[in-house]
Amino acid sequence: MLPRGRPRALGAATLLLVVVVVVGFFLFGRDPEYGLQATATLDGDPYGSRNRSTSDLQPLLPLKCELLHVAIVCAGHNSSREVITLVKSVLFYRKNPLHLHLVTDAVARSILETLFRTWMVPAVTIRFYDAEELKPWISWIPNKHYSGLYGLMKLVLPSILPLSLARVVVLDTDVTFSSDIAELWALFVHFSDKQVIGLVENQSDWYLGNLWKNHKPWPALGRGFNTGVILLQLDRLRQSGWEQMWKLMAKRELLTLQATSLADQDVFNAVIKEHPELVHPLPCVWNVQLSDHTLAERCYLEAADLKVIHWNSPKKLRVKNKHAEFFRNLHLTFLGYDGKLLRRELFGCPSQLPAEAEQLQQAMAQLDEEEPCFEFRQQQLTVHRVHITFLPHQPPPPRPHDVTLVAQLSMDRLQMLEALCRHWSGPMSLALYLTDAEAQQFLHFVETSPVLSVRKDVAYHIVYREGPLYPVNQLRNVALAQALTPYVFLSDIDFLPAYSLYDYLRASIEQLELSSLQRKAALVVPAFETLHYRFSFPNSKAELLTLLDAGSLYTFRYHEWPQGHAPTDYARWREAQAPYRVQWAADYEPYVVVPRDCPRYDPRFVGFGWNKVAHIIELDAQEYELLVLPEAFSIHLPHAPSLDISRFRSSPTYRDCLQAFKEEFHQDLSRRYGAAALKYLTALQPSQSRA
Amino acid sequence: MLPRGRPRALGAATLLLVVVVVVGFFLFGRDPEYGLQATATLDGDPYGSRNRSTSDLQPLLPLKCELLHVAIVCAGHNSSREVITLVKSVLFYRKNPLHLHLVTDAVARSILETLFRTWMVPAVTIRFYDAEELKPWISWIPNKHYSGLYGLMKLVLPSILPLSLARVVVLDTDVTFSSDIAELWALFVHFSDKQVIGLVENQSDWYLGNLWKNHKPWPALGRGFNTGVILLQLDRLRQSGWEQMWKLMAKRELLTLQATSLADQDVFNAVIKEHPELVHPLPCVWNVQLSDHTLAERCYLEAADLKVIHWNSPKKLRVKNKHAEFFRNLHLTFLGYDGKLLRRELFGCPSQLPAEAEQLQQAMAQLDEEEPCFEFRQQQLTVHRVHITFLPHQPPPPRPHDVTLVAQLSMDRLQMLEALCRHWSGPMSLALYLTDAEAQQFLHFVETSPVLSVRKDVAYHIVYREGPLYPVNQLRNVALAQALTPYVFLSDIDFLPAYSLYDYLRASIEQLELSSLQRKAALVVPAFETLHYRFSFPNSKAELLTLLDAGSLYTFRYHEWPQGHAPTDYARWREAQAPYRVQWAADYEPYVVVPRDCPRYDPRFVGFGWNKVAHIIELDAQEYELLVLPEAFSIHLPHAPSLDISRFRSSPTYRDCLQAFKEEFHQDLSRRYGAAALKYLTALQPSQSRA
Repeated sequence: MLPRGRPRALGAATLLLVVVVVVGFFLFGRDPEYGLQATATLDGDPYGSRNRSTSDLQPLLPLKCELLHVAIVCAGHNSSREVITLVKSVLFYRKNPLHLHLVTDAVARSILETLFRTWMVPAVTIRFYDAEELKPWISWIPNKHYSGLYGLMKLVLPSILPLSLARVVVLDTDVTFSSDIAELWALFVHFSDKQVIGLVENQSDWYLGNLWKNHKPWPALGRGFNTGVILLQLDRLRQSGWEQMWKLMAKRELLTLQATSLADQDVFNAVIKEHPELVHPLPCVWNVQLSDHTLAERCYLEAADLKVIHWNSPKKLRVKNKHAEFFRNLHLTFLGYDGKLLRRELFGCPSQLPAEAEQLQQAMAQLDEEEPCFEFRQQQLTVHRVHITFLPHQPPPPRPHDVTLVAQLSMDRLQMLEALCRHWSGPMSLALYLTDAEAQQFLHFVETSPVLSVRKDVAYHIVYREGPLYPVNQLRNVALAQALTPYVFLSDIDFLPAYSLYDYLRASIEQLELSSLQRKAALVVPAFETLHYRFSFPNSKAELLTLLDAGSLYTFRYHEWPQGHAPTDYARWREAQAPYRVQWAADYEPYVVVPRDCPRYDPRFVGFGWNKVAHIIELDAQEYELLVLPEAFSIHLPHAPSLDISRFRSSPTYRDCLQAFKEEFHQDLSRRYGAAALKYLTALQPSQSRA
Repeated sequence: MLPRGRPRALGAATLLLVVVVVVGFFLFGRDPEYGLQATATLDGDPYGSRNRSTSDLQPLLPLKCELLHVAIVCAGHNSSREVITLVKSVLFYRKNPLHLHLVTDAVARSILETLFRTWMVPAVTIRFYDAEELKPWISWIPNKHYSGLYGLMKLVLPSILPLSLARVVVLDTDVTFSSDIAELWALFVHFSDKQVIGLVENQSDWYLGNLWKNHKPWPALGRGFNTGVILLQLDRLRQSGWEQMWKLMAKRELLTLQATSLADQDVFNAVIKEHPELVHPLPCVWNVQLSDHTLAERCYLEAADLKVIHWNSPKKLRVKNKHAEFFRNLHLTFLGYDGKLLRRELFGCPSQLPAEAEQLQQAMAQLDEEEPCFEFRQQQLTVHRVHITFLPHQPPPPRPHDVTLVAQLSMDRLQMLEALCRHWSGPMSLALYLTDAEAQQFLHFVETSPVLSVRKDVAYHIVYREGPLYPVNQLRNVALAQALTPYVFLSDIDFLPAYSLYDYLRASIEQLELSSLQRKAALVVPAFETLHYRFSFPNSKAELLTLLDAGSLYTFRYHEWPQGHAPTDYARWREAQAPYRVQWAADYEPYVVVPRDCPRYDPRFVGFGWNKVAHIIELDAQEYELLVLPEAFSIHLPHAPSLDISRFRSSPTYRDCLQAFKEEFHQDLSRRYGAAALKYLTALQPSQSRA
């Protein structure tokens, strides 16, 4: 602003001067503030450095509600996590509808499809493009960059994006926004008629070719340009024969150079070296590059405002930089940012939600806030964001009797994971109920655990927290849906299975010929418990029975809730040599092994109570045989009572609501199974006093 | 941006037109985009609604590194929480140094002083003004608004702020920024020579005076103005005799009206009604008012961008509004935002950190990242943000033998609080190690708990999480420093004291004449443990002994770590009728009652191990008598092992580092106590095998 006391006419004069310059750009097609001579080179004067007054006369922003297009190439588990943080940063500042064009491999597609479907952000639409199909277009180019083939795919975007699309912003997955992407989009206005590619100068000396002896980079104009952030004028690129152009250039250079070192960036720079008229240099703040030997400081020390940070070192956030802390804080902001808060409408823009989300919103609106079970009903309807296979995962090879352990947990059970991995050597599918910030802690926990980091057969699915009640059955359903073996062991996180259980279950499935006979069976794994933290786990049924007799172990919930496991018939199990059939009875909730296409858990049971009981009823109603396995067992370890169980015990409303949901569940059962469901209703009566 | 294909000359022409209009404002002093006739009234066209292209030609922003001044009135525990969220939102978007002028009562001052000292945000300076001293200036004005006298204090800001200060932004504590405050500051440029107060129109019909029969609001221009966000041109206000002016006006209106309904806002509006030339109307987006019957929709549905949200309903976030979810999400962003991420430098601006923070940064920089204990040393140096008395709290009346229970916990022990309150009826000082988001969950937990919400004698101090290791002794020191009684009971959160303990301790302190004799004593409360969650707590020593004999209770860590409590001499305690003295021995770590000026805990012990042992050594070195109380006891409840203890058990580095810190501790002891400290070193040798 103007210093106090100076005549306002002087302010007006300054402004007029600035304006004449800006208007000059419009009329004559070159902006001295943005031109290659000045702002875009590291040795010049960066955008808006000396005085914000002039630079912040921003370029014309897009119209309210104008749709902006963004293209990103993303492959694999780790890049999928990265891209979500990038998207969060974009969504945080954006005020326009966005259309994302995502070029993905199968892994990223399945992760991101689930994520965006459950995220339900208004005014964001997605289209996927199969990276597999693009490989033939670029796989002939030898490449040494860590992005592999995928980096090169940016070159073919003009050929594969819809013909109707005239402009697109292309982003690497390792950038973070700290400003509205509309401001970046607005820079298209400054392109001259010939300019088709907007890029920021490379903020390192790489392309100068003097980094070490015999360092031979690809040709580039000066320091070259970085392709982490690109503005593509697609229509003109297509007209100018872009596809021919870059292929020719790449082939020519590959005659003397063996491979690309920096993937697409080498090719882009080679083309630009030959055709400098194609490039529109962007202000350096739109791609602040934190590579290992970055010169970015020359940009950001002067600039008033950083727009996009680019973590283009292979070390990513661990890059050595004296201001790294500052940039990390920006990035951590979005890593830990609660994604559900980005479900913000754009006021005044039409039709922003997919139909599914629209219906959900209406259902939510119909709930009665004064009803005593309102909180429960709201929780039941809540659609949680789901990030499947958060960490690298190798699906198990197809084997007809294989079993996946299925369970769910939240942060306070993380310390169970290592022990669980030691006890169960087979595949697992685990749903974790976490905040975005906790998901990062979890990531760190796994990466630093020698036991967990080597297990690629454990799939972790993050279900993001929302609402006050623990959505236990929704979590179980997520883990169950992601199990990839023909059978699943439906367990709980506080149980450690017998060391032999994984092998024994597969052998039992084979012996019982469950798959070949298409036998509808639920194999019961008898449950025990210990009250001691330090406890030497029995290596066999014989050892377990000794501990049981010594009073060091109990059958599960023997004192508090015997009917939960009574039908398992522990006395018979002691002696049993072969699987034996048991009958359903009220409140039975054993841990079972079933085919993975078994019924889902009923999501109406949130918080504490009846969540497994209802599932066993469903199995029984669908005529699953209940077969107890004579050598199987698992043992519950002690833990402090959950907040949900404390609330259940202290709140009459909580108990009343659970009762109401049990009745609704029974009504649904009658509707679906008719008279056959009567036995469950009859059985319900005497147990009403409890949960 | 311009539609594709339209000639660029047209864009230039549009820009020129806009420019002429803006320049016109500079020369002739009225901006048609901001004038009362157009943008600022609800029936007009809000700022930037039709087309962002024109409105986003922003006003001139302040210079890089220009200091902006903000004044806020804040009193009490709840407003202190509010103001921190406001400040976080301002800091998130700001790019300028800020000076905060905080008018506070004693409670808010003590909270905010601690917070900002430990927050150490670069380029933020604070000055406090005592609200108590301002009361005589405004207490003669009868006021019915919920803000009480404090709201009215905004009227006297021109009189109390430094004379050298020409401009200030004044904010209510219940506003949230979603833009850079520099843009607001920039609006000062648009003030005419006469205009001294910048305000947004009131977005309700209140001042139209037709809300109900006999509704007689204070006089106002049209809908009047809202004072949640004010730009004050202080120099001109002082020149124009503001103090006289508002007092006269208030006195005149109070002849017919009994009191102000909306505090300062009524007075501001009365002045403006009489002197409309004083007000500079601001665009509605700078104060989007979510009161109960808000008309704000007319503003935000059209606007491209909301700048400041104002929660000016007494219901705050629970206000009924069909877009409330949107606004809540903005607000929740900053409620849960990790404040440490705001410790961002402003690149290129000089001297931003207080000396203390500068030293800390240097100490951190000197740590060797390759050293095996680097993580520990980093954690030891970490200064955590501290928010003392996070919830309303009444200090205990001064009583010579009173005792405060001191403990620390994190989220996973929240369920202990209710039981603890039932067992201990006296004052407590608890440090909670939480993230910002968890602090909000904790707030909700206390507010909805019938047991906790009534206890105003429990002070909760939030220590914000930072770093991988649990800073157990730093937490204890925070809780200890905030204890306000002459004695403290240094306990742990997993222990429940005997029901009678509070009364018994006070009686013992009196009987032992600790205070009158200035006797340096540490009273030992013997510790026991149970392995059962459901457990009927003994009502007397006799009952406890019965349980002990029955094997339902043990002396604490009897199996794992007997030396921790052996010197308490449980056998003697069984029979004891009077306090008895015991001698220190290696590894002794009893729970003790001491004067509150006792030595602090040694903050070098982070994570698991030796944190209490070192404190007891310190007491012994300072010649505290160790007296075991014959009727005192407390019982440890079971819980799952912490992540820290698991790491300790599994990591040799962890154990080696702990050993190194023990040795450093002993070196310090020798330095401070000379030969007297030798016995601790000698005692250390045999126990090296353990921790």
